[in-house]
Amino acid sequence: MSMRDLYDGVRKRSLMLAEPLSDEDCGAQSMPDASPIKWHLAHTTWFFETFILERFEEGFAPFHPAFRVLFNSYYNGIGERHPRAQRGALTRPAMREVRAYRANVDARMGRLLAQQGGDELLGLLELGLQHEQQHQELMLTDVKHLLAQNAMWPAYMDSALPRAQGGAALAWIGFDGGLAEIGHGDDSFGFDNELPRHRQYVAPFALASRLVSNGEYLAFIEAGGYREPSLWLSEGWDRVGELKLAHPLYWQRDAHGQWHEFTLHGLQMLDAARPVTHLSLYEADAFARWMDARLPTEAEWEVAAAGIATASGGLHPAAAPQGGGLTQMFGECWQWTSSSYAPYPGYACAPGALGEYNGKFMLNQYVLRGSSCATPPGHARASYRNFFPAGARWQFTGIRLAR
Amino acid sequence: MSMRDLYDGVRKRSLMLAEPLSDEDCGAQSMPDASPIKWHLAHTTWFFETFILERFEEGFAPFHPAFRVLFNSYYNGIGERHPRAQRGALTRPAMREVRAYRANVDARMGRLLAQQGGDELLGLLELGLQHEQQHQELMLTDVKHLLAQNAMWPAYMDSALPRAQGGAALAWIGFDGGLAEIGHGDDSFGFDNELPRHRQYVAPFALASRLVSNGEYLAFIEAGGYREPSLWLSEGWDRVGELKLAHPLYWQRDAHGQWHEFTLHGLQMLDAARPVTHLSLYEADAFARWMDARLPTEAEWEVAAAGIATASGGLHPAAAPQGGGLTQMFGECWQWTSSSYAPYPGYACAPGALGEYNGKFMLNQYVLRGSSCATPPGHARASYRNFFPAGARWQFTGIRLAR
Amino acid sequence: MSMRDLYDGVRKRSLMLAEPLSDEDCGAQSMPDASPIKWHLAHTTWFFETFILERFEEGFAPFHPAFRVLFNSYYNGIGERHPRAQRGALTRPAMREVRAYRANVDARMGRLLAQQGGDELLGLLELGLQHEQQHQELMLTDVKHLLAQNAMWPAYMDSALPRAQGGAALAWIGFDGGLAEIGHGDDSFGFDNELPRHRQYVAPFALASRLVSNGEYLAFIEAGGYREPSLWLSEGWDRVGELKLAHPLYWQRDAHGQWHEFTLHGLQMLDAARPVTHLSLYEADAFARWMDARLPTEAEWEVAAAGIATASGGLHPAAAPQGGGLTQMFGECWQWTSSSYAPYPGYACAPGALGEYNGKFMLNQYVLRGSSCATPPGHARASYRNFFPAGARWQFTGIRLAR
Amino acid sequence: MSMRDLYDGVRKRSLMLAEPLSDEDCGAQSMPDASPIKWHLAHTTWFFETFILERFEEGFAPFHPAFRVLFNSYYNGIGERHPRAQRGALTRPAMREVRAYRANVDARMGRLLAQQGGDELLGLLELGLQHEQQHQELMLTDVKHLLAQNAMWPAYMDSALPRAQGGAALAWIGFDGGLAEIGHGDDSFGFDNELPRHRQYVAPFALASRLVSNGEYLAFIEAGGYREPSLWLSEGWDRVGELKLAHPLYWQRDAHGQWHEFTLHGLQMLDAARPVTHLSLYEADAFARWMDARLPTEAEWEVAAAGIATASGGLHPAAAPQGGGLTQMFGECWQWTSSSYAPYPGYACAPGALGEYNGKFMLNQYVLRGSSCATPPGHARASYRNFFPAGARWQFTGIRLAR
Repeated sequence: MSMRDLYDGVRKRSLMLAEPLSDEDCGAQSMPDASPIKWHLAHTTWFFETFILERFEEGFAPFHPAFRVLFNSYYNGIGERHPRAQRGALTRPAMREVRAYRANVDARMGRLLAQQGGDELLGLLELGLQHEQQHQELMLTDVKHLLAQNAMWPAYMDSALPRAQGGAALAWIGFDGGLAEIGHGDDSFGFDNELPRHRQYVAPFALASRLVSNGEYLAFIEAGGYREPSLWLSEGWDRVGELKLAHPLYWQRDAHGQWHEFTLHGLQMLDAARPVTHLSLYEADAFARWMDARLPTEAEWEVAAAGIATASGGLHPAAAPQGGGLTQMFGECWQWTSSSYAPYPGYACAPGALGEYNGKFMLNQYVLRGSSCATPPGHARASYRNFFPAGARWQFTGIRLAR
Repeated sequence: MSMRDLYDGVRKRSLMLAEPLSDEDCGAQSMPDASPIKWHLAHTTWFFETFILERFEEGFAPFHPAFRVLFNSYYNGIGERHPRAQRGALTRPAMREVRAYRANVDARMGRLLAQQGGDELLGLLELGLQHEQQHQELMLTDVKHLLAQNAMWPAYMDSALPRAQGGAALAWIGFDGGLAEIGHGDDSFGFDNELPRHRQYVAPFALASRLVSNGEYLAFIEAGGYREPSLWLSEGWDRVGELKLAHPLYWQRDAHGQWHEFTLHGLQMLDAARPVTHLSLYEADAFARWMDARLPTEAEWEVAAAGIATASGGLHPAAAPQGGGLTQMFGECWQWTSSSYAPYPGYACAPGALGEYNGKFMLNQYVLRGSSCATPPGHARASYRNFFPAGARWQFTGIRLAR
Repeated sequence: MSMRDLYDGVRKRSLMLAEPLSDEDCGAQSMPDASPIKWHLAHTTWFFETFILERFEEGFAPFHPAFRVLFNSYYNGIGERHPRAQRGALTRPAMREVRAYRANVDARMGRLLAQQGGDELLGLLELGLQHEQQHQELMLTDVKHLLAQNAMWPAYMDSALPRAQGGAALAWIGFDGGLAEIGHGDDSFGFDNELPRHRQYVAPFALASRLVSNGEYLAFIEAGGYREPSLWLSEGWDRVGELKLAHPLYWQRDAHGQWHEFTLHGLQMLDAARPVTHLSLYEADAFARWMDARLPTEAEWEVAAAGIATASGGLHPAAAPQGGGLTQMFGECWQWTSSSYAPYPGYACAPGALGEYNGKFMLNQYVLRGSSCATPPGHARASYRNFFPAGARWQFTGIRLAR
Repeated sequence: MSMRDLYDGVRKRSLMLAEPLSDEDCGAQSMPDASPIKWHLAHTTWFFETFILERFEEGFAPFHPAFRVLFNSYYNGIGERHPRAQRGALTRPAMREVRAYRANVDARMGRLLAQQGGDELLGLLELGLQHEQQHQELMLTDVKHLLAQNAMWPAYMDSALPRAQGGAALAWIGFDGGLAEIGHGDDSFGFDNELPRHRQYVAPFALASRLVSNGEYLAFIEAGGYREPSLWLSEGWDRVGELKLAHPLYWQRDAHGQWHEFTLHGLQMLDAARPVTHLSLYEADAFARWMDARLPTEAEWEVAAAGIATASGGLHPAAAPQGGGLTQMFGECWQWTSSSYAPYPGYACAPGALGEYNGKFMLNQYVLRGSSCATPPGHARASYRNFFPAGARWQFTGIRLAR
């Protein structure tokens, strides 16, 4: 596929994700960590305009001068920013104008790509597309969080979520360890945080053959897991107390004691065979301790994932397939690791504002590996490092056990 | 005018206020104290449905069962409520559905009023209309706050705000005081907090002939008023430090030192002759002290206002007219008093949930008197008691000096 | 008694109050609103040094230059202050040095009073003594709060708190109302906030003959008073939820369900006949509503108190005496009124830093009338206006009902 | 030295550290993270009483039953705890009683050690002594923080802090890297978090020959380091803004622009040659970036430290000695690493309450290596893992550069 076709495909997919939503849905923000769909659509466009058109387009003039501030996410090198927690207050520009902004930038990008094509431009183009794909995942998780605030439990997609079949038994798969290489290694795209590929010594370990299921996690709840301090990291135990945590983010119990889970398909009966999702690292770690297991390190996960094909999913994680081997590594839930998000040895961040893309967040965040049902097709890879603070629960996060 | 005509007029005016706005504008919430326009439109409808139709309509069925929770503002007696700070997350129902809700309730109200007409029904009807008028004022102040978050400074109304002419000199008007009666006294509508009419002894006093102007307030700023603790109440001085207050809410200075004011007509050059507005009680009190004056008590204000005709205004307070007498008592800015919001002697709040309308807020709030440019026509009266916490600045609040 | 004798008596009483305590007890601070005993002893001395010696003493030199900052409570006019919440960090000067500071200032005051005696000096002297008496009350309430943090429940005074006898029935005493005069009116000392004496119209009212008892308040608790929102002011109900309030400040229940109350005599069985104390205005107001009564205004209280002799008590409020009439107006518990703390008509605060004594606190605080068991002898009077924020509970506050 | 002699030596040293202080100094707490000296003295005693005497002493009875709660730091497995932020409110027991508690436990420990001596007992004894040594370091850093709150700048030790001589130039020392072993490896004592010794691959690296000096850090300040966002981790930059950070914790500038540093010897002129100390990880990281360098990982640090003798110091870090090689690895400042505090591969925490000693803190904290001037003699070793949150500044923390 040509870069131009890739560009068109990714750009169209963002708009497609907004299709089931009204303009009102697209403007709202439910918490500071989540952004309105409209903001995602504009910010990803701003990225191309600011980092590519401003640099390469002859006679560059911004689509709208105020957008430089309104749609800057966190780049101090670019200048001022609209406050993150107030993105929902940006009722102007309207969705209609943001669509026009996208069309305008797309047309200019088309002209530019027809004329120029150096390595630097193509590198930035690829970065911009990967960036937009990251926001596509956030569009789904952010809108899920938004809809979950509404006691009418509106569905993003009205189609039914079928009851999962069976669900495989959990097995342990052993790995020898040794001096391994991890990090992005071939010519394909990788973020700077996956680089450089480097050696790391990994002791022998085993991974669970599949993700932890809702049924298993329910057993933890019913055994009093949320009330037993010895299972929790100190900070996690404090959080359980402050927020009165007693179950994953979108679970709720009806008057008859029946558990339900809010999904992008609306409120659903809890399905024991599907993977448990929307957990903090605190919860993942406590569950692992309860199972006399632990979370994997990111190096262990990457060693195990070598050669496993990526997958991409629907709008909710599916139950593990029957049969042997390591399953659900990609396409269901991001998997919390015990590895803090830190620079690889020899890591160098890009010069200028793009150097802020990843590097400045390498503190007090933890790495998640794999990909989720919300990850765009083609975006996942074994060396990919997703990262969130330990308390984040609105992503499709799940548990892969190790020991 | 018949009650039915009154009903139609008030109800239409709410929709008319939303006309310059997009559906996106109508859904957003810029702070917990302000609500989305759509929420105001739905909540005022909920009020009629809950307090009138549910009681008087034969075979009552709610328009939508979830609305009882979504659009309950603060009535514990009615039951659960959607969290106030998350009203912006209610992208469903859509504006379109809220319009349908309004039309449905209006039609049912029309049928009901054609059949029934007892005192209790008419009393509740009048309360509902006054309630909706209160929300009409909030619609304007809330949307102003919303638009002010946007660095593109969008105008609610594109028409120009003309430069004010002249501006009258400030004179002092004396009053004899004595044993006065205040509180609502005739057959017209009054809220329970204006009752009962009762005697209060008022010492001789004088009121300023007009509101404090922007020019006068600017002199206070330039004289260092925000940096001199002896001018401030202790709590006000703390607030100045915490929030780094240095001017009224919507003022800003451009790179050349020129002051501007954000208005419903967009960003405007500061007009020295217009009244200063969007001030906290802290600021009003500090300014008064700087002038060797004070704020009036609500009894003084009401005594002075006897017999003065109400007025209603545009979208921004106008400069004081030339000529003598007490001016700008109504229709420009609400006037902070030094009176805490407390029950009048003999006050009795209504039974049931409607008893929560006013009474439970009678603590740590201060009374404002008069009315503002945003107050609907016909809503103001001399005995009216508006109230806000001392730090509130997003209403059209201003300063009437006393001594 | 000569002013010099008065001075000696008040100054000695402060040291006497510290006698049951160790130096360690005297240095600790249990919350920002409470101060260490040592700080009280130094600050009251600072008051004489700063407002009298600095002005009248020839060749004035401060005892220690740093004390000007360390022991300034809230006088911006004097200059910088040690942060209020960090008074417990002032382990230097030691108690021994603070005693030396007191002795030094006392000696200099003695010399000064032997030489000078003008009205201004004597006025400031009297203010300084009244100020020290106010801090004597705080010394007891602050140290009670401190000791209450300690699960060993140490007593300030080891002597037993005898079981109260009987307890009178609650009767209602009617008053005619009319145009009354309130405020300080004779030649004796009064704070600026009690001035000027002025007329106020008071409607007919009735006061309860005694304070509300522990037994009556326990009935409110057992009837679910803390769980019924219709009884509470909106802000009070929010506070009940946030702080999970379910009983007065120092009450606790043992494993057998028996209620105890922490007192300056240590932990005691709850005594049904003694007055309930350590309540917020929120709780006092909710209880009154539950009783179909209300709190008095400060004018009502003052009208009723005319001619009633003051009393002063031990270390805990005593049960109401048998017999008729209005009892417990003084010497047991401060009585919350529904009156916000506001300037009387014509109020003028003193010039300079002493103007900060009272005036700047006249916002979002409520007036308490009477006096408590902790009030020093001779300090109470009918026109006295004590004031605290509605949520304050560590003073000896109680409930006098009105209707 | 016999275990009994060791015990006596460590226990005496704690009391010796309290000698320059008054009982008042020993009772105060300046922030939730710091504890009163008295609390340290009691808690370290509680540790022996709870984990050794309660288990091994025949006929065990606690010295005082309430102490089990009062002096429990964070062991959920032991039961309830006095709130950490309120340790300063524990004026009882008095210092005198805590000394008696220490003497009592020491006597009982002496009798026990004369009778028993199994491996388990001796292991717990050694843990208790190491634990007490950790608290000895905290006693110095906590009391420094306390004294720093006092504008009289009291010294812990009145002896002069001599002006440092010279100061060596900064050189880079290279290391080959490779497959290294880190972690505690011999028979001597090591905490569970240093175990197991394990292999780790380390790429070639270089370390700075000495710590960063005050003079070098001052150059960073003067070059605008605290105002340049590109130097800071995102969370660090937020902290700089919130807390208005502009220099290390105990630095201050006088009216003439001269920098001073508060030390345990009182306020001192800033000494350019001494190491900069009392920095957060945010500041250490920003400085390293400004130098085009980085912080070491803990594995790099440990590899480099192999075979270097430990040292222990006075009350303030000393300037680097002249001459070559790696200096100041021990005995001056703890050195921030870029390594998050995480379990080593194969880490197993102890069963029961002692398992809470280290393991539950392995999240959102960063490892510091080496030791400081406040570390007790004999306590440091190359495998030692100290850890604090990235924002902690009250320890003797400094910067070792790597690249």
